[in-house]
Amino acid sequence: MEILTGGPVIVLVEPQLGENIGMVARAMANFGLSELRLVNPRDGWPNDRARAAAAKADHVIDSANVFDTLEEAIGDLQFVMATTARPRDMIKPILSPETAVQSLRARMVNGGQVGILFGRERWGLENDEIALANEIVTFPVNPAFASLNIAQAVLLVSYEWMKCGLEGEEVSVTGEPNSLPAKREDLIQLIDHLESALEDAHYFYPPAMKEIKKTNLRTLFTNADLTAHEVHFLRGVVAALERRWQKGRDSSL
Amino acid sequence: MEILTGGPVIVLVEPQLGENIGMVARAMANFGLSELRLVNPRDGWPNDRARAAAAKADHVIDSANVFDTLEEAIGDLQFVMATTARPRDMIKPILSPETAVQSLRARMVNGGQVGILFGRERWGLENDEIALANEIVTFPVNPAFASLNIAQAVLLVSYEWMKCGLEGEEVSVTGEPNSLPAKREDLIQLIDHLESALEDAHYFYPPAMKEIKKTNLRTLFTNADLTAHEVHFLRGVVAALERRWQKGRDSSL
Repeated sequence: MEILTGGPVIVLVEPQLGENIGMVARAMANFGLSELRLVNPRDGWPNDRARAAAAKADHVIDSANVFDTLEEAIGDLQFVMATTARPRDMIKPILSPETAVQSLRARMVNGGQVGILFGRERWGLENDEIALANEIVTFPVNPAFASLNIAQAVLLVSYEWMKCGLEGEEVSVTGEPNSLPAKREDLIQLIDHLESALEDAHYFYPPAMKEIKKTNLRTLFTNADLTAHEVHFLRGVVAALERRWQKGRDSSL
Repeated sequence: MEILTGGPVIVLVEPQLGENIGMVARAMANFGLSELRLVNPRDGWPNDRARAAAAKADHVIDSANVFDTLEEAIGDLQFVMATTARPRDMIKPILSPETAVQSLRARMVNGGQVGILFGRERWGLENDEIALANEIVTFPVNPAFASLNIAQAVLLVSYEWMKCGLEGEEVSVTGEPNSLPAKREDLIQLIDHLESALEDAHYFYPPAMKEIKKTNLRTLFTNADLTAHEVHFLRGVVAALERRWQKGRDSSL
């Protein structure tokens, strides 16, 4: 059997326990995943408990990268999925782990870099974090006892990834090289740019509505599956609107 | 979504760490399995660490049953699978977790009770334990890093069980009620009976060959998929041979 390398990037958002990070690394190694990213781990990094729990998956632990924000952690990715047990008030495709890895594999065939987000042990992912994902993955758990921890969730996704590879399913998503999905960092810069412009325009008034509006924005632009070209184009649009508005304000002085 | 109950019995053979037993219970509860059996747990039972790690899967912990031997633990089952990572010198069907649960579901449709064996954390199942299983389940792990622990292995099997149920696959194994597979306790009594007869007959000489011969016997009779009627019939055959041999011995005195 060929050893699978690469695969989707596993992103843990603010993981709390080193043991869980270690168990995640072990689960990944068992099924041939290797790239782990940590957003702001509570107990810092490196973490001895993580290494002990990794059961010799040292290659995953040693190459793990730490980021201050989720936005930085997914910056170079073109497609992102968020795992969450609870349904959210957000319009995004919801996939099973099996369908999710098939979709990810198809996107990687086209040269894309993909990742999967896993939330904090205590309360998972925030809405504004989920908004940055293209699609949502949920697990078919017993509704009367839904208590998967992050290491278990990573194990199931990694297992499905391995299974999917062994089946030799290579579903290809059609698309020209020029129309590759945008890197997340470019998309986030677009959203930030737009938010900043809207902030200046008092769009986020009253303050109580600000977070909901921001989440809706993130969701809308992320769900649009924009290409790199489209994001570049929209940056120009926002910049143009911003300049026009500033020019108008200046002229009213 | 309907809550699934029942499902295969999970049998842990000589589990060493209470934490792992607890994580097994949690994994089971997440995917609707409920019956846990423990063979000779190292730290006794009940176990506080198991309960703590079970994350409120108390119904699984509270109803867990403890047995002194594997033979007792699987006595009332009609079909048993053994999980093992390593290939063994034993002729038994080897299934993926997905195929395994489909097979188990089909056997339960016919009213059979089924179970899955998981070995010790350190060295898994012994050959003579595997010999008592009808089929073997292996996981498609990365050969360069195969380090699934028992809680992870139970999680994957339980997850596949839930998935299989949601797909509504109800493959039926054909068979009349009269030809149901034998309960394991009846099969084991048959094997014990035969071994005892063979012991008296010096079949197990020289002693170095005894264990191998016993394992081969267990494997042979378990793989034969005997019905209750067939086992009953064979008991009569063995008893008859035994009596004949004893009679012959008596008459030679």
